[in-house]
Amino acid sequence: MSKEITSRAADYSQWYNDLVIKGELADYSAVRGCMVIKPYGYALWENMQAALDKMFKDTGHVNAYFPLFVPKSLFEAEEKNAEGFAKECAIVTHYRLKTDPSNKGKLMVDPEAKLEEELIIRPTSEAIIWNTYKGWIQSYRDLPLLINQWANVVRWEMRTRLFLRTAEFLWQEGHTAHATKEEAIVEAEKMLNVYADFVENWMAVPVIKGIKSPNERFAGAEETYCIEAMMQDGKALQAGTSHFLGQNFAKAFDVKFLSKENQLEHVWATSWGVSTRLVGALVMAHSDDQGLILPPRIAPVQVVIVPIYKGDEQKAQIDAKVKEVSAQLKDLGIRIKYDDNDNARPGWKFAEYEMKGVPVRLAIGARDLEKNVVEVARRDTKEKRVIDLTGIADYINALLLEIQNNMFAKAKNYMDEHITPANSWDEFERLLDEKGGFISAHWDGTPETEEAIKEKTKATIRCIQLNNTQENGKCILTGKPSTQRVLFARAY
Amino acid sequence: MSKEITSRAADYSQWYNDLVIKGELADYSAVRGCMVIKPYGYALWENMQAALDKMFKDTGHVNAYFPLFVPKSLFEAEEKNAEGFAKECAIVTHYRLKTDPSNKGKLMVDPEAKLEEELIIRPTSEAIIWNTYKGWIQSYRDLPLLINQWANVVRWEMRTRLFLRTAEFLWQEGHTAHATKEEAIVEAEKMLNVYADFVENWMAVPVIKGIKSPNERFAGAEETYCIEAMMQDGKALQAGTSHFLGQNFAKAFDVKFLSKENQLEHVWATSWGVSTRLVGALVMAHSDDQGLILPPRIAPVQVVIVPIYKGDEQKAQIDAKVKEVSAQLKDLGIRIKYDDNDNARPGWKFAEYEMKGVPVRLAIGARDLEKNVVEVARRDTKEKRVIDLTGIADYINALLLEIQNNMFAKAKNYMDEHITPANSWDEFERLLDEKGGFISAHWDGTPETEEAIKEKTKATIRCIQLNNTQENGKCILTGKPSTQRVLFARAY
Repeated sequence: MSKEITSRAADYSQWYNDLVIKGELADYSAVRGCMVIKPYGYALWENMQAALDKMFKDTGHVNAYFPLFVPKSLFEAEEKNAEGFAKECAIVTHYRLKTDPSNKGKLMVDPEAKLEEELIIRPTSEAIIWNTYKGWIQSYRDLPLLINQWANVVRWEMRTRLFLRTAEFLWQEGHTAHATKEEAIVEAEKMLNVYADFVENWMAVPVIKGIKSPNERFAGAEETYCIEAMMQDGKALQAGTSHFLGQNFAKAFDVKFLSKENQLEHVWATSWGVSTRLVGALVMAHSDDQGLILPPRIAPVQVVIVPIYKGDEQKAQIDAKVKEVSAQLKDLGIRIKYDDNDNARPGWKFAEYEMKGVPVRLAIGARDLEKNVVEVARRDTKEKRVIDLTGIADYINALLLEIQNNMFAKAKNYMDEHITPANSWDEFERLLDEKGGFISAHWDGTPETEEAIKEKTKATIRCIQLNNTQENGKCILTGKPSTQRVLFARAY
Repeated sequence: MSKEITSRAADYSQWYNDLVIKGELADYSAVRGCMVIKPYGYALWENMQAALDKMFKDTGHVNAYFPLFVPKSLFEAEEKNAEGFAKECAIVTHYRLKTDPSNKGKLMVDPEAKLEEELIIRPTSEAIIWNTYKGWIQSYRDLPLLINQWANVVRWEMRTRLFLRTAEFLWQEGHTAHATKEEAIVEAEKMLNVYADFVENWMAVPVIKGIKSPNERFAGAEETYCIEAMMQDGKALQAGTSHFLGQNFAKAFDVKFLSKENQLEHVWATSWGVSTRLVGALVMAHSDDQGLILPPRIAPVQVVIVPIYKGDEQKAQIDAKVKEVSAQLKDLGIRIKYDDNDNARPGWKFAEYEMKGVPVRLAIGARDLEKNVVEVARRDTKEKRVIDLTGIADYINALLLEIQNNMFAKAKNYMDEHITPANSWDEFERLLDEKGGFISAHWDGTPETEEAIKEKTKATIRCIQLNNTQENGKCILTGKPSTQRVLFARAY
């Protein structure tokens, strides 16, 4: 039952897969590009969902649910959006199977059950939602409409990776409607801040807030705001996006409202989403060669307790003390697990919970009981301490907070150290290959240059930072004049 | 903005649709047979989900997520299950759209992007899940596996109705794996009891627990347990099912485990589910001709407060008092809404919240303030009382409980009065046509007779009650000997 994992140094990509599989977050499935989210991984996602959902509701949003299917005629209504997703759409063409006359016990698609109009499985829901909003919005009194949906979506990716890029994934998508351009922009920025708050303060992953270059914008958006995180291999990961959609969807679906001034006007829109991809970000930002390291605020199990005993009598004594300690921890809202499964030895359990990234492990033996102490091991630093059982709950509570803060500080330090200015093309290429991270460089502002840099180096513009410093310079590739630096990186 | 609804007496079916649409629970969508669950309806579903999810976790279950798609070869592996769902499957055959050369700005399915193997959109997930369990189960130590999934499923129904029967619906599906037949049966029965507990104590809808006749069993099950509820028009509604699946799926997917006795054996299975259909049951069980009546335990808003005032000064005084009362109510965990929107008059608001079924309405005016009282109206009985504001929170808290209990008692009374024995075919037909409800009658136990009764009357066997009384009698249709009565009804 030993679970060896590849080290980061040996093969970063394999290390990641090992963590996800052996940490029991997810599994491959029989469906190309789709994964199974295992109970431990799903419990992590549930904690993330709960925190985000509360943040959405606290900012005035409500949840709803729209159909999985988008009729082709609606899908293609907003042309840029349709064009952007057309190549990765799963398409339902039939609605019935029948027994295969030439193959006993097998089924075949019934050719007589062909749909008159094909149905696209939503890769994102702007089309179906704005077609619905048309019926809900007549007057400025119906605005703003602040709706979020938790759902599955499908994007037929050719190259997939567990959590980071799967054909089906789970996400939330907010879709809001506003009377004015200004209000919609405020909303898009507000939700970017909500995402940054969540990713930094719950996931302990620092992010940079910015806007995308036109090349990297969401198909159908006027402006895409994003948060970008830095992984331990120096590659960037887009952790969330929030789009100002202008009136594009309102025009495509003819959604107008009567303003206070009694004018018929098109509605302004935003959409914003984060997905199970965040689980992948979490894994890659924090874990080490022994396994996952989960931030306490969203860890499914915050504290695991392992008894060390010989014989039933010692076990009974430990059980009694653990019961007492557990009650104290639960009173503080701490999520605990007492693993007294006698099929596995303590050493095996230690390795198992290290693999699973449980923030704090308590080991309690007969001799500890006599001294009224317990061994406390923290996952992030691997530090072990013997702590008096009196007041243990408060100690653990403070320790969980310290771990949360320490994880963020460590990741923040890594990110800060991996934002490097480049002032020449040689330096740019060398930094990318030797150090990685974000390279802050001048860019002449054209899509052609961005494309050329991508072709040469596989690096893309991750974002133009919000409130970016304006300074005159020369484009890193073309030498043409530039007014600001942007952040380049290779990315997931 | 008046929202008239059809009365139950005039057209029960239209009454139901009016409630769902005008009560803002759901809306029709552009996709045939699919609905949009609106924020108010979704909030109701979220409350139902939260209660059920806790009950599942309290009985040892964990959540996970499996793919939306089932490859055809897996789908057809368990033949009876496949046969049962084949005629209502949405099928993905292609994974890409391309621009239509003959139709500018339009897209078409790319014929070159045809899947080698078609993907079925899950109508239920036994196939994909048991194919996965094969990799997770080796030994008795891996059992039991107690997993639940919250998901969307698709069943291509020809005749659809909001919530009650939609092509796509939301549900939970539990899928458990056990070492013994006995343990699996205990699990199936346990989850039936969880469902009954939820539907009766949260939704205030009484149910009858029973097992299905072979004709009505889930495709692929050895035994289907069910809870059946009674609607106000005398028709039954299946509110939840729990299946003992025997070793059918384990055999179809070759899932074996090494027992304690070191024998390789097939695993035993259960599955169980409830869906957004329950929202339809809730609407039809309790509502009246003025609108919805929601049970307090799951109502999105439990108490609505409407101010009645002239001028800003009165408004400010009422606001201050409402703030105080609201804080007291919130402290007790009561979900409240203060509707001080000045675009609508109090009378309009009263009608609106009556329509939406908010259990308790408080109306507070300037004169009430002087007397330190408030008008309390309960939705279920329409009774109004003037209550002293001192101690109002405790009064409301008790009232919510009373409403919950009263709603259950009323529905229970209706159901009890609509279980009627029939001892002759004439009586059976007359009862069905004139009274409705459950008809308790002898049946010879054959599928042929059940089918014949269905053809003649549209009534089906809803269930054979758990712990059914054994008595000798003669089949209501054929006169052949019978050992017990079963419950017939026309059903949704």
